[in-house]
Amino acid sequence: MDKISKYITGIRGLDQAAMDEAKRRLDALVKPPGSLGRLEDIAVALAGISGGLTYDGRKRCVVVMASDNGVVAEGVASAPQAVTHMMTLGFVRGITGVSVLAKQYSADLMVVDVGVDADIDHPLIKNRKIRKSTWNIAKQDAMTREEAEQAVMVGIEIAVEAVEAGYALLGAGEMGIGNTTTSSAVLCALTGIPEEQVTGKGAGLKEEAYRQKIGVIQSALDRSKPDPSDPIGVLAKVGGFDIAALAGLYIGGAYKGVPVVIDGFISIVAALAAARLAPATKDYMLASHASYEQGFTHAARALGVEPYLHLQMRLGEGSGCPLMFAVIDGACAVMRDMGTFEQADIGDEYINEVKDGDSFSV
Amino acid sequence: MDKISKYITGIRGLDQAAMDEAKRRLDALVKPPGSLGRLEDIAVALAGISGGLTYDGRKRCVVVMASDNGVVAEGVASAPQAVTHMMTLGFVRGITGVSVLAKQYSADLMVVDVGVDADIDHPLIKNRKIRKSTWNIAKQDAMTREEAEQAVMVGIEIAVEAVEAGYALLGAGEMGIGNTTTSSAVLCALTGIPEEQVTGKGAGLKEEAYRQKIGVIQSALDRSKPDPSDPIGVLAKVGGFDIAALAGLYIGGAYKGVPVVIDGFISIVAALAAARLAPATKDYMLASHASYEQGFTHAARALGVEPYLHLQMRLGEGSGCPLMFAVIDGACAVMRDMGTFEQADIGDEYINEVKDGDSFSV
Repeated sequence: MDKISKYITGIRGLDQAAMDEAKRRLDALVKPPGSLGRLEDIAVALAGISGGLTYDGRKRCVVVMASDNGVVAEGVASAPQAVTHMMTLGFVRGITGVSVLAKQYSADLMVVDVGVDADIDHPLIKNRKIRKSTWNIAKQDAMTREEAEQAVMVGIEIAVEAVEAGYALLGAGEMGIGNTTTSSAVLCALTGIPEEQVTGKGAGLKEEAYRQKIGVIQSALDRSKPDPSDPIGVLAKVGGFDIAALAGLYIGGAYKGVPVVIDGFISIVAALAAARLAPATKDYMLASHASYEQGFTHAARALGVEPYLHLQMRLGEGSGCPLMFAVIDGACAVMRDMGTFEQADIGDEYINEVKDGDSFSV
Repeated sequence: MDKISKYITGIRGLDQAAMDEAKRRLDALVKPPGSLGRLEDIAVALAGISGGLTYDGRKRCVVVMASDNGVVAEGVASAPQAVTHMMTLGFVRGITGVSVLAKQYSADLMVVDVGVDADIDHPLIKNRKIRKSTWNIAKQDAMTREEAEQAVMVGIEIAVEAVEAGYALLGAGEMGIGNTTTSSAVLCALTGIPEEQVTGKGAGLKEEAYRQKIGVIQSALDRSKPDPSDPIGVLAKVGGFDIAALAGLYIGGAYKGVPVVIDGFISIVAALAAARLAPATKDYMLASHASYEQGFTHAARALGVEPYLHLQMRLGEGSGCPLMFAVIDGACAVMRDMGTFEQADIGDEYINEVKDGDSFSV
């Protein structure tokens, strides 16, 4: 924990002066104040993060933490465990959803094996395996406390390496059959929200399997009695290597002063765990899309973030992050390229009137 | 009206066979069926529109219809009328919100003067002026029925020209001080929703001016008693050249088989008018963002569309369209570039299980 603490305490708060300067600049641009809504909020947040007026997020990367989960032995997953391995290889072959979307929006993909239940030796997949699969949370803790800390450190180190390699935007993706079950358990443990409310049926899980999934989460929580004030303990007892490593990614990104984009359900549960470990990380998080997965809304509320895209996606993998990178590009462009009232030849006699108004179009 | 009717009756329905083929292809891709949510819906819609499996929307354009509104004499606008002229020039100078966002997302900008209250002679601004400003709807009809038809035809012709020049995606933008008042009046006339519900205060309109705005809309409707089943009559009585021309743009885009992206409040009211004139246009419309302007939600509900981006924008100009072009790029990339289960080496014994499941991550 000492190793992790060094990074947590090293996170800088937002640069308030830069944010004030950004707001002033935005209000001088040729538009009614605030009329670009949340694009302006993003631009201000990036100023607070970077300390500068403009932000260059063109070099960006989605990190996919891949790992297996012992809980699949309980029949909570509709896909077989081997799919984790196959998809992990699929990412670097460029044929998966996140691969295609990352490429479309000029983002790189960094695939990290933190616990896939297979021997992977691939030049494009980072081997940071803690162990082959966690244990079955229905029967015992997913991992030891030391392993949980180790997984968080993997995420921190990956973020640090990425930023040192020049990446200015990170996305938090994952792959792991069984990880909506572990994420639901972590969310319940951290928030006290009942299992039924956070557990999704998705499009295909049959009623019986759904009941089974809720029962598994319930017995995992009953068995391990995780303490919500101890996020590392929660991750160790009912989480997974992927969730823990993603929590570390948020901490590492914040430590290096770079925003990390949240994807779907698993990604936002990891973000919540990171924010519980290190509240300052929240300033560096940007939600992307509102996942169709039922627990997402609860996690977003607990974390206090509001997604920008409403696409009913539920693929995971980090697939929503590149779309959000594109939205961020817009915020950066507004700040960088828009002209001022003065440049628009809208003279002083109009400026105050326009600035008082609600919209040019009113 | 005969001229317009030719285009309305010429709109093809969606290609159902192509849509079925698109759905089959999407279900063969290496992801649980439907897990890319509305990105998949967009890909299917584009197949229905184009008749092909993939869509190339890289050459795209936001059309800005600029015009003045006589109703500003009533004090309903917080910005002076001359701002319409100045902003129209600002668009082609590249300093406005829509200019910057169009450039960021690789879209061109086509600025059309349909009724700006100034002499504009600029090589980059298309002169299709019906007249300098409409009349004041509080006192008389905005325009004659012939002028309304003429404005709709301008929009149709602009769309036809754009598609013939190679544009495969169009965005519907506008500029015109006073046009949230006319749009509110058109929306009330078409739907019967009371004025107070559709009229926005925005960020700055004072209570008195807001009451004034509602009163103006009310008296315009009381005076002219527009018939909701006669959209051209509605546009003539309480609309504007910009709204009428945008309605034409939707019709022209649909006629030429190209999707048209809706921006904010004025843009969606024009879309509703177009859909009332020609219901088949709806299949060619894509909403972009949920405008912060109060009437937007009512118009979206009446039209039956759901925005993809939640950015609280209320700038107009077509500024939301380029962001939606970027989302459409994602849908096109998924269809074009993702691999199938077979390519992912996920063998037959898994495919059915995976396809039955709700998510790889469950």
